[in-house]
Amino acid sequence: MTIMSEPTGHPKRRNINFNAQHSPMGAFMSFTCGHFGSRGGIGVEIGAPANQDLYIGVKEGGRYSDQPLKCLPFYRGADETNADAFLVEQSGPAEQNTESLVVPYTAEEIERTYNWATDQWRTEDFTFTVYTPFGEIPDPSKASPTEMRRALMPAVIAEMTVDNTAGVQAKAAFFGMKFNEPGWRPLADIGNRTNGFAMKRRIGVLGKLGDHSTRLDLFCRWTPELGVVDPVAHLLGTCPGLVFEIPAGQKQSLRLVFGAYLEGIVTTGLEGRYLYTRYFTGLEDVLDFAMSRDVAGPSKVSDHRLRESSVSDSQQFLIAHATRSYYGSTQLLDIAGEPFWIVNEGEYCMMNTLDLSVDQMFWELDLNPWLMKNLLDSFVRHYSYIDQVKTADGGLASGGISFTHDMGVHNNFSRPGTSSYELPDLAGCFSYMTQEQLCNWVLMAASYVATTDDLDWLRQNRHVVLACVESMQNRDEPIATGLMTRDSNRCRTGQEITTYDSLDTSLGQSRNNLYLGVKRWAACLGLSFLLRKVGDSAQPIDHAAATSAKAIAGHLNSSGFIPAVFEVNNEGWRSRILAAIEGLIYPLHWQECRHFDSSFAAITASGDHAALLRALKSHTLTLLRDRECRNLFSDGGIKLSSSSNNSWMSKIAIFQHVVRKLFDEKHESDILQLMNRADNAHMNWQIEGSGYWACSDQFVSGEAKGSRYYPRIITAALWLESADSEKKRNHE
Amino acid sequence: MTIMSEPTGHPKRRNINFNAQHSPMGAFMSFTCGHFGSRGGIGVEIGAPANQDLYIGVKEGGRYSDQPLKCLPFYRGADETNADAFLVEQSGPAEQNTESLVVPYTAEEIERTYNWATDQWRTEDFTFTVYTPFGEIPDPSKASPTEMRRALMPAVIAEMTVDNTAGVQAKAAFFGMKFNEPGWRPLADIGNRTNGFAMKRRIGVLGKLGDHSTRLDLFCRWTPELGVVDPVAHLLGTCPGLVFEIPAGQKQSLRLVFGAYLEGIVTTGLEGRYLYTRYFTGLEDVLDFAMSRDVAGPSKVSDHRLRESSVSDSQQFLIAHATRSYYGSTQLLDIAGEPFWIVNEGEYCMMNTLDLSVDQMFWELDLNPWLMKNLLDSFVRHYSYIDQVKTADGGLASGGISFTHDMGVHNNFSRPGTSSYELPDLAGCFSYMTQEQLCNWVLMAASYVATTDDLDWLRQNRHVVLACVESMQNRDEPIATGLMTRDSNRCRTGQEITTYDSLDTSLGQSRNNLYLGVKRWAACLGLSFLLRKVGDSAQPIDHAAATSAKAIAGHLNSSGFIPAVFEVNNEGWRSRILAAIEGLIYPLHWQECRHFDSSFAAITASGDHAALLRALKSHTLTLLRDRECRNLFSDGGIKLSSSSNNSWMSKIAIFQHVVRKLFDEKHESDILQLMNRADNAHMNWQIEGSGYWACSDQFVSGEAKGSRYYPRIITAALWLESADSEKKRNHE
Repeated sequence: MTIMSEPTGHPKRRNINFNAQHSPMGAFMSFTCGHFGSRGGIGVEIGAPANQDLYIGVKEGGRYSDQPLKCLPFYRGADETNADAFLVEQSGPAEQNTESLVVPYTAEEIERTYNWATDQWRTEDFTFTVYTPFGEIPDPSKASPTEMRRALMPAVIAEMTVDNTAGVQAKAAFFGMKFNEPGWRPLADIGNRTNGFAMKRRIGVLGKLGDHSTRLDLFCRWTPELGVVDPVAHLLGTCPGLVFEIPAGQKQSLRLVFGAYLEGIVTTGLEGRYLYTRYFTGLEDVLDFAMSRDVAGPSKVSDHRLRESSVSDSQQFLIAHATRSYYGSTQLLDIAGEPFWIVNEGEYCMMNTLDLSVDQMFWELDLNPWLMKNLLDSFVRHYSYIDQVKTADGGLASGGISFTHDMGVHNNFSRPGTSSYELPDLAGCFSYMTQEQLCNWVLMAASYVATTDDLDWLRQNRHVVLACVESMQNRDEPIATGLMTRDSNRCRTGQEITTYDSLDTSLGQSRNNLYLGVKRWAACLGLSFLLRKVGDSAQPIDHAAATSAKAIAGHLNSSGFIPAVFEVNNEGWRSRILAAIEGLIYPLHWQECRHFDSSFAAITASGDHAALLRALKSHTLTLLRDRECRNLFSDGGIKLSSSSNNSWMSKIAIFQHVVRKLFDEKHESDILQLMNRADNAHMNWQIEGSGYWACSDQFVSGEAKGSRYYPRIITAALWLESADSEKKRNHE
Repeated sequence: MTIMSEPTGHPKRRNINFNAQHSPMGAFMSFTCGHFGSRGGIGVEIGAPANQDLYIGVKEGGRYSDQPLKCLPFYRGADETNADAFLVEQSGPAEQNTESLVVPYTAEEIERTYNWATDQWRTEDFTFTVYTPFGEIPDPSKASPTEMRRALMPAVIAEMTVDNTAGVQAKAAFFGMKFNEPGWRPLADIGNRTNGFAMKRRIGVLGKLGDHSTRLDLFCRWTPELGVVDPVAHLLGTCPGLVFEIPAGQKQSLRLVFGAYLEGIVTTGLEGRYLYTRYFTGLEDVLDFAMSRDVAGPSKVSDHRLRESSVSDSQQFLIAHATRSYYGSTQLLDIAGEPFWIVNEGEYCMMNTLDLSVDQMFWELDLNPWLMKNLLDSFVRHYSYIDQVKTADGGLASGGISFTHDMGVHNNFSRPGTSSYELPDLAGCFSYMTQEQLCNWVLMAASYVATTDDLDWLRQNRHVVLACVESMQNRDEPIATGLMTRDSNRCRTGQEITTYDSLDTSLGQSRNNLYLGVKRWAACLGLSFLLRKVGDSAQPIDHAAATSAKAIAGHLNSSGFIPAVFEVNNEGWRSRILAAIEGLIYPLHWQECRHFDSSFAAITASGDHAALLRALKSHTLTLLRDRECRNLFSDGGIKLSSSSNNSWMSKIAIFQHVVRKLFDEKHESDILQLMNRADNAHMNWQIEGSGYWACSDQFVSGEAKGSRYYPRIITAALWLESADSEKKRNHE
């Protein structure tokens, strides 16, 4: 997929001015660049682009010529429209009055190709390519140290190739990085063509030339221009970099490794170190190892797979963009000798937010099911709790097991059984999500077993599954209504909310909520599956699922939709929410799992759940075919709730996936066209509305307003599944 | 000493609006507060105030009253003149529209007492006192772990006392801290009256109430006001704090510990960890231990000693201010199992800048001579080098041993034999200081032996001393002129400079320089002393000293002063530098050392060096009595060079010390009065010209322009010595 310019003929100009969060797996690290005029570079354990100016470019005539530096626009000031040449910010006593000329390439002078694992920038002078291959993370109990080193290498690799074969004079080429914090140091000077620099013990850049024909020099002055002319590595300088010359008629490549290494214990509460520290001795080891890895090969395989899939260009963009930001939030720790998987919540850095985990699991179950087991176990062991529930008459009744919203924030594990997020006495944001998190754990457990058939694990956790059944039922008492009716007493005077915490009340309140009702129905099916697998009776939970399905379907109103909240006096009574069908994803997904051997949950026009399916399809068609377009933004983007301009890209992706499963070209081609138009809009949201923040989730009218630099948009990868099965269907 | 208000009667109002860098010893850590409307708090390994807003105050009527919070003005915005009450900066989704009323006390409502180890703020509602006792750091090879814990405890202790005995309603009192970075966490909740919070694993605040009559609650919301009303410790909050209530008629004290703990290896090049990590297991251990220490007692002893000394109020202020900033730059590491002493260079964070070490040694030789031995050894082992020197005809000749300017910067040790600072091909700032650093090591070695009589060490280092003799002579060839004549070849096309790198050429150039000439003469005396001690012949170096003295004295011109540079066409030919007499400090100091058993270096009117002494006294009197006042600022502050508005407080302090040694009340009372007037000016420089930066060194016309947050002003403590010996003299 070449989304930015067509491989042949006239390039189709698209906006290339956006950050990509290039990330290794499990290192909570990124190398971010791509947005014009802002800082990025190597960021570790921060939910945002780092603060480094990158100077990647060439100087005509060689190092000592009087030409300006010409750079990719990845530094502050590079987007100043009114200046072809301008003064780089100065510092340091001696050079305060020196003019430093750095000229950015304009957007028109650059082509960008953005594939699944390759991001390439092309100017008339050079190419700069960043590779982020991804794949399996082996279970360390079953893999060799070498395999673990390959998978966990906390580094991103790039290549800069300068082709001066047609040139008549020498060129200097350079990679400079202004850290904007003190503490740079040179790395050991290994031969003529290898050189590099680091920031204290934590992050570093190693460069190596493709051949021996020229030498790679390290510099550090206050500006890249000073460094290129005078390659002195002054420890008091602020802009280290690497520079080399390419004589006329030659071509040279510089391979760059951007690495990180955080040693020792990095968390509190539970004391964890990075699992990679078990396999690498330090930053230098990481950089050296990464330098020798083939990354272009595996990256091309991924690129090819996405390009050859049947999803559209804009879908390909969203999947590629989401994959990078997903990995940037991942963190694989070693706690007490055992692996501990964490996905941080983007800019918020909450750890393993469970209502994200359940959405992200589709990706991990495909690649690394053992990480999902790890997560399920962590939640049971450290972050489950037993509550009571509030009755209508102001009393208390038995509740049961549930799970915390998250496991802490910013590397601080919260106390066992508590989250960083949840507070009592609230009716909106920051209240408890007890019912929804119970569903989430169950849905993950069922999906894990459906994928792996890991009956050992299931048997060991039978008591947890039984506790979940009880807890699920206790939240819908005294008469089983099929919906959650009782709030957790942890809320004290408040009430439970759903993952759509800051959307609007139509998706916020948990009780009698359509979105949560469908998810809860799916969780009941999941419990039924788990009980059957382990030989327990599923009859009561099957009954609960049936009650639930009936209750929800029964709310389809004369306007053809189901209210968001089943309370006449609630604002949500009038809200039209597309997220209603989100919960269908689980049984739809299970149907395609090899080990989901029960037909009781089949989503078919004639099965047990046909009435619910019919109602939800009908609801969705009503909303999507609404003449007032209350569930679409003016650009064609999806509006999850008619009563809010807030929309979440990760949730939209699931919604679209379900839509594409439910409807077909023959009967609902208009709907599928709507989806395609929406994909284009969503791509623009990310590029135009989140240019600095790489991949973001929460958009208000197309502008990223929260949940930025976010992992959850990886749900877009579900589209590959639907596209693939569609392809399969067409071939049959 | 109560410099801010008189203990009795009408308070003499002085400006209390300045930061104090409250620091433990050897932890490279400070708790900084005092400057209005800016941020400070706990800073670790940064040469600047930290970035925390401090909310220290009370709320009338108790926690839930509708009164505003009344706080010391230690947070951003607290100096907004036009607002009695204003909106604290908001963050966080839920409270974005909440008004948070925090009212700062005005300067008129506060009294501040600034003693050597006690800094107290007094409002009508409470007192807030910060204690920084200092003293000996035992040699770990000779001290018990308990003694080491006491000395190295990386924590600062404060006390907040709220007296509501005359009140008619309850008061709430609180200590809140907005870190302005993510990662706060609660500490374990130990009983009702102890509570605290931390930033990840690195820094923390522990509070404990004086008695059990009330409980201490932890809060964390987005503002202190929200926290005081609703003491929920939300992990997503940004402003943690501690709050307690004082019923009418009662009095309560909150003891606060501000601690740090950096675990693991913290440096590169040489891999060091903090020596305190050998004695403390972690942050919690530090906080808990510090909570039980008596700090008020030892602090009062220091306070009393300074107050009862014979130095003036403004001198007392400068000594107290300098002591705090000195310790804030100190860092005692453990490298390969052995202690490694570092003083960082203030805002620049260069490590063990040798031209600072030599000035700071007077302080350490008094308290911890073993640290000076440690430093001398580190320089020999890792940061000495052998150079060649440049001859007049463009050739090269033998040079010899010298020492690097520093050992690295920002925790990155530079490569052995190189500094972070020095670069070739320069004639000014960042050039080499080979000759001066050679003098500095010699002067430190001689002072160390003169203080300790450590002949074991001297014998082990005899070869180094001999190498220094040879190196010293090789820099003044082919004919011994008594001055340095040959630049190190490390300068390549450049020339050597002195520690006065950014002053002006009159103090910058090393060759034929008056300042460096006198220092070099003193170093020759020092070498003579060391050679004699170890039984070697001192004759050649005595001769070099005599040549030197004669050459310098011979330059006294008809205007009664000695030119700064002995080159007629040099700008320094006309410069009048007070720093000329700086080098006298060494023999003057040695005279008072018990183990300096040679009279050859006596500085008396009739001794060997009488002619030089006479010339330097004459030079100094000419400059100080100059009708055009070319060596004074308009406020009476000392101008080290007539040709520059740059002046360095630490160097002025040495100069003043020498002046007070050389001149007496009977013959030069005008000069001593000038010194006293200068002290007042210098105190104002620090308070008015460096209010945010605590104690600074480099002032341009009274404004701190560089070398801020600086350790070297500890040279002011020399005044205690002169005052004490003067006192002694008066008593005799």
